[in-house]
Amino acid sequence: MQTKLPLLITTGEPAGIGMDVVLILADEGKLQDFNRPIWVTADSTAMQKRADMLVKAGVLQSCPLWKTVHLDIVANNFLEQMSQQTLDDHNNDNAFILLNTPCAEPVVCGQINIRNSVMVAKQLDIAHQLASNKTVAAIVTGPLQKSALIDAEIKLLDGTMFSGHTEFFMQQSGRDKVVMMLANQAMKVALVTTHLALKDIPAAINADNVRQTVQIVIDDMREKFGLTQPRILVCGLNPHAGEGGHLGVEEIEIINPVLREFIDAGVDISEAMPADTLFTPRHLANCDAVIAMYHDQGLPVLKSHGFGDTVNLTLGLPYIRTSVDHGTALDLAGRGGASATSLYQALLMANEMADKSLINRPLV
Amino acid sequence: MQTKLPLLITTGEPAGIGMDVVLILADEGKLQDFNRPIWVTADSTAMQKRADMLVKAGVLQSCPLWKTVHLDIVANNFLEQMSQQTLDDHNNDNAFILLNTPCAEPVVCGQINIRNSVMVAKQLDIAHQLASNKTVAAIVTGPLQKSALIDAEIKLLDGTMFSGHTEFFMQQSGRDKVVMMLANQAMKVALVTTHLALKDIPAAINADNVRQTVQIVIDDMREKFGLTQPRILVCGLNPHAGEGGHLGVEEIEIINPVLREFIDAGVDISEAMPADTLFTPRHLANCDAVIAMYHDQGLPVLKSHGFGDTVNLTLGLPYIRTSVDHGTALDLAGRGGASATSLYQALLMANEMADKSLINRPLV
Repeated sequence: MQTKLPLLITTGEPAGIGMDVVLILADEGKLQDFNRPIWVTADSTAMQKRADMLVKAGVLQSCPLWKTVHLDIVANNFLEQMSQQTLDDHNNDNAFILLNTPCAEPVVCGQINIRNSVMVAKQLDIAHQLASNKTVAAIVTGPLQKSALIDAEIKLLDGTMFSGHTEFFMQQSGRDKVVMMLANQAMKVALVTTHLALKDIPAAINADNVRQTVQIVIDDMREKFGLTQPRILVCGLNPHAGEGGHLGVEEIEIINPVLREFIDAGVDISEAMPADTLFTPRHLANCDAVIAMYHDQGLPVLKSHGFGDTVNLTLGLPYIRTSVDHGTALDLAGRGGASATSLYQALLMANEMADKSLINRPLV
Repeated sequence: MQTKLPLLITTGEPAGIGMDVVLILADEGKLQDFNRPIWVTADSTAMQKRADMLVKAGVLQSCPLWKTVHLDIVANNFLEQMSQQTLDDHNNDNAFILLNTPCAEPVVCGQINIRNSVMVAKQLDIAHQLASNKTVAAIVTGPLQKSALIDAEIKLLDGTMFSGHTEFFMQQSGRDKVVMMLANQAMKVALVTTHLALKDIPAAINADNVRQTVQIVIDDMREKFGLTQPRILVCGLNPHAGEGGHLGVEEIEIINPVLREFIDAGVDISEAMPADTLFTPRHLANCDAVIAMYHDQGLPVLKSHGFGDTVNLTLGLPYIRTSVDHGTALDLAGRGGASATSLYQALLMANEMADKSLINRPLV
């Protein structure tokens, strides 16, 4: 019997490849690699149909076995149903436990149906609740189609339009800041700013933002990666980290004063470094995480060293969340051609974090 | 007898390690690796003294042999003196030919003396003339101390203060735009903008600048690297290359219209690509050069893949110029501890370009 808490996969948009990649890993026996139960949110009818299609297409050797748990989604009382019994029922003949999140209308591969968008959001809600209550050790999210949720007028808690997994989990958790981190075997890179036009970046670099980002990275490296004294290197905003003020003053006026607060408090963190010095082997070898000021300063170098093993993490949530780094690939759903590598890597990272994490220890 | 044109090394600041690294390569026999005469500009007395110091310090096995040519710097008539006879005199017992550029005052290791700054500038002038006249195949520049030339009030041709090798050679050559490229075994990256504060980058991205940069890269990949149809990939300015205008409009309004001019003219060049997609192995494998919009978009990724083999090139000059990527390291001069790897790589790249180049073929 497996005694570790499960990893939960949300399959996301049912017309995309979210279910396909779960079935591919199940077929290859790779869902057993983590020595944890794997729970999957999806529509049970659509999952069966997708498996049949992929067997027929020769993508799967045979239809994987799974155990379906029917949740009363409308009454929202699934937590009671997900008793310890469910966990004990799980055995290795089943590749995963399916938490049935029914669609409003039958799923057609490759065709977005906004009547099914409520079900996509419902998966995230279930994931949030199960992770918050420590019923699962981590959430691994499959791809959704943001535009479909927006067209279906799915709202976030604060009443604004749905804008993505990260914003959803942040609001549900009552947090007002989270940090995007990308990680692979070569390095881990967290970003102070994420998807901003280049011209809007300088205005977004302020002491509060830098301080909150650093604090979240430190906290999560400790709590979710189990590193007592994480070693962190930080990029400057400007080339050569401003070269003493000749190439920009943000390092002097904003970034370094904040970093010195942490250094003075005993944190193993650098002052602002030139990005083209920081990302060299001798510095990376002595570093647990890098904080870059913006997207194209940190992610090109990270992805250039990743061969399909890059995982997206959200730091600052009260639970572990990793994500695939691909989209819904509507044209590949049910047909084959989808790669399950990214899901596998996201599971691997979630599992590694769950093993090292301090936050999943049983509450006394 | 070597029949290929020489490579010319300027040793730069005499109080720094410029002469040291030449002597180290000479001692290791590595100046013979290129099957070309190596010419070196330096003060002959300082060079002899430096060699003696390094032998005494155990850095050199023995004092390398070189042949000194005394140039009448003041009369500026050295070209006549550098006759074919000089080239024929060169033989393999001599590691290099020293073009004596006398200092005003004796050189003290590690101590900048602005009375010797005229001599530093003179080296660049000699290099420019010998390269322009195709007496040498390429210039490889050692490090100088910019502040020393400024303190000595060395001016550029246009009357402005000295601001570096690149600006010097550009003005001497009558060019109004050159392009900085960094190259190693993994990739070649040219920059549209170089040393600008991040906030000043968007204003510097205009159609003229992008067009001139692309044209220079194309021309030099053809003329100096011998590639008939170079394959060029270009980064967008914004993350995700602006994501269709959602994350910035410079790709739509400025960059892509310019790139389409080149595409329409038959050039093998991309439209603006997301930097974190471009710098992945599958794209780099089919690319001769990358054009990045700014310093920290292109150089961190390039340097992260270079293990000391990164070379700085100036494109857009009428000759080949490579450079070491280190500074004067004043504290190491005459003592040992300086690494000659960067000079060797810069010579290797200059030699490779000289071999492939179309611009060094004898004038008919």
